[in-house]
Amino acid sequence: MGRTHDAKHTGEDLPVELTDPAIFAARRERLRAKMAEADIPALLVTHAANRYYLSGFELSDSQCNESVGWLVVLPTGRDLLMTDARFTDAAKRLWPVEDTLIYGAGKHAALAEVLKGQGVTALGFDPRAVSVFDHEALREHFELTSCSGLVEDLRRVKEPAEIELLRASCGLNHRVMRALTDVLIPGMTEAEAAWQIERLFREAGAEGLSFPSIVGVNQNAALPHAIPGDTKIARESLVLVDAGCRLDAYCSDQTRTVWVGREPSERFQDTKRLVQTAQKAAMQAIRPGVRYADAYKAARAVFEDAGVAAQFTHSLGHGIGLETHEGPSLAPRAEGVFVPGMVVTVEPGLYDASWGGIRWEYMVVVTDSGCVAL
Amino acid sequence: MGRTHDAKHTGEDLPVELTDPAIFAARRERLRAKMAEADIPALLVTHAANRYYLSGFELSDSQCNESVGWLVVLPTGRDLLMTDARFTDAAKRLWPVEDTLIYGAGKHAALAEVLKGQGVTALGFDPRAVSVFDHEALREHFELTSCSGLVEDLRRVKEPAEIELLRASCGLNHRVMRALTDVLIPGMTEAEAAWQIERLFREAGAEGLSFPSIVGVNQNAALPHAIPGDTKIARESLVLVDAGCRLDAYCSDQTRTVWVGREPSERFQDTKRLVQTAQKAAMQAIRPGVRYADAYKAARAVFEDAGVAAQFTHSLGHGIGLETHEGPSLAPRAEGVFVPGMVVTVEPGLYDASWGGIRWEYMVVVTDSGCVAL
Repeated sequence: MGRTHDAKHTGEDLPVELTDPAIFAARRERLRAKMAEADIPALLVTHAANRYYLSGFELSDSQCNESVGWLVVLPTGRDLLMTDARFTDAAKRLWPVEDTLIYGAGKHAALAEVLKGQGVTALGFDPRAVSVFDHEALREHFELTSCSGLVEDLRRVKEPAEIELLRASCGLNHRVMRALTDVLIPGMTEAEAAWQIERLFREAGAEGLSFPSIVGVNQNAALPHAIPGDTKIARESLVLVDAGCRLDAYCSDQTRTVWVGREPSERFQDTKRLVQTAQKAAMQAIRPGVRYADAYKAARAVFEDAGVAAQFTHSLGHGIGLETHEGPSLAPRAEGVFVPGMVVTVEPGLYDASWGGIRWEYMVVVTDSGCVAL
Repeated sequence: MGRTHDAKHTGEDLPVELTDPAIFAARRERLRAKMAEADIPALLVTHAANRYYLSGFELSDSQCNESVGWLVVLPTGRDLLMTDARFTDAAKRLWPVEDTLIYGAGKHAALAEVLKGQGVTALGFDPRAVSVFDHEALREHFELTSCSGLVEDLRRVKEPAEIELLRASCGLNHRVMRALTDVLIPGMTEAEAAWQIERLFREAGAEGLSFPSIVGVNQNAALPHAIPGDTKIARESLVLVDAGCRLDAYCSDQTRTVWVGREPSERFQDTKRLVQTAQKAAMQAIRPGVRYADAYKAARAVFEDAGVAAQFTHSLGHGIGLETHEGPSLAPRAEGVFVPGMVVTVEPGLYDASWGGIRWEYMVVVTDSGCVAL
């Protein structure tokens, strides 16, 4: 989105594909084909990342309870962008004025008026992305059909240009992780380290973090949701860093667990080796046609052989793109198989509340014959 | 939330009132009284800021489409906190284990099992904060009653400790705004200035921005949703800055429009004077019992007298607290009256796309006899 690009980055523009209206139009055409299969002539798109993916309009809502607009994908191809007056100018730069609805208080009725003028009286909607309130207001005007995941299914297989953007976001993430030895200084608190990490991302051009960073010292590294706090980095301690950025709209996510000091403990070295072995096993398992759950099992099998599987307490990873967490989930009971173009995190870990934890993470793209790390 | 406090701030703790479980318990008691009036014996709380307000558990969800937990306020007073395994530790620090539900995939059924064990088969819910998907899953188990705004009604009147936190957040905002003369340097881009402003907030202890900053030079200042871009601050130009922070969970929001250079244009000076006059008129109008819409009208009347009311294109302001935008809205047709303890922004502006725009903003707290700026 380029909102906070600094001098080092503003010289570069987005790859032309991702500002070109043709790419959004092509995505809507692919969606229309899926809609036809599902017998959904018109689809209401309310989830912010889906709206952006299909239109280029606003990646985020202003608050989770404050939408900045919806998109309606129509059989005619004259798709409707609807937003409020604050975004009139932003909409104008992207969308034909005659296909834009600027709404006030009564947005459901305003939408109905426009669509009924086009003979559209039935709408598909995603039940996970529409509130009961909006549903009740819309069903006064439309016949509503529930259909989940149509846009998410498209998003989970990345286009070549998206993979390049993810590679760039991940590349910045690697640079920041390589700088960790300079950042993690004994005496510094976890919170201070987190801010230094964020500065590195931002000053290199990231729009922001892709999620709140985790910096956990020793036992804090065992908390899956460790909030960087006042704990100081001690000399000769273990520090887990899980951090990522949003660069040109695309998210990255990496975890490293490092030893600050000169004498990494044997347990640290052994556990790290085991986690990295599990990660490699999972990456070797990932290829088109393999079940998500089997990638998880490949990592888990390494831990089982070592008798520590109970310390692996979360899933193997998740899809990543315009959002940090998107499909597919690489959970033990996830259904579905890998397809070329998917980008997922592979992040096994071992945790012991009385000692600490080690997690290691790569983002990989599924190729025709396997996967490669970004 | 203290996630990214730096050294300047980590020495200070939250005011004791806002970490003391008693304050959350007292809020839930007040809510229970309102629930009894509304004949809602048990209330499902899904909106993140409402959950935090009532429990202290997690102010934000991990993504807008990824809840980190719900709260159920029950007639017995043994309220239920439900979350997933990632937050087991965070929940344990706040909530009795016996009243905590750690869910996996089937959270609706798990909730039903716990509540039915307590004889609870009916739930109130907020239709704006529950998706159609969750509603359908819940209604297999519960009799559901729609009720909006019960928690928001409590939140809109701030407790004394909340007013102090808002004063502190706003105080930091004032400090950053006073530093603008050093930040806004000719030749710097809007995006660079936005990042400098964010650094000032963060390095003074803010957890983050309360919303993406607006920095608009000349004509860009006329866009209500200006994204800081590559436009450079020229010598002798107008710059609108709308920015705020989140400090100890509470949001601030301030706008200033300044002249960079030595010779502010007459139009700048005249327009700024007019906007500030409108702002004062609105602040003089705000007192308990006055309608929100009449505060808006007081500002608008100043612009009408000057023949420029058409350039005032948005509402007067909004409530602010744990979220940047919360009730009440000070819109032309808003219903309701001010009550002591409300904290609202007062931010009239005048915009001309061919020239620029001026907005000026204060946060005010409604007192027994009027209002005062924070």
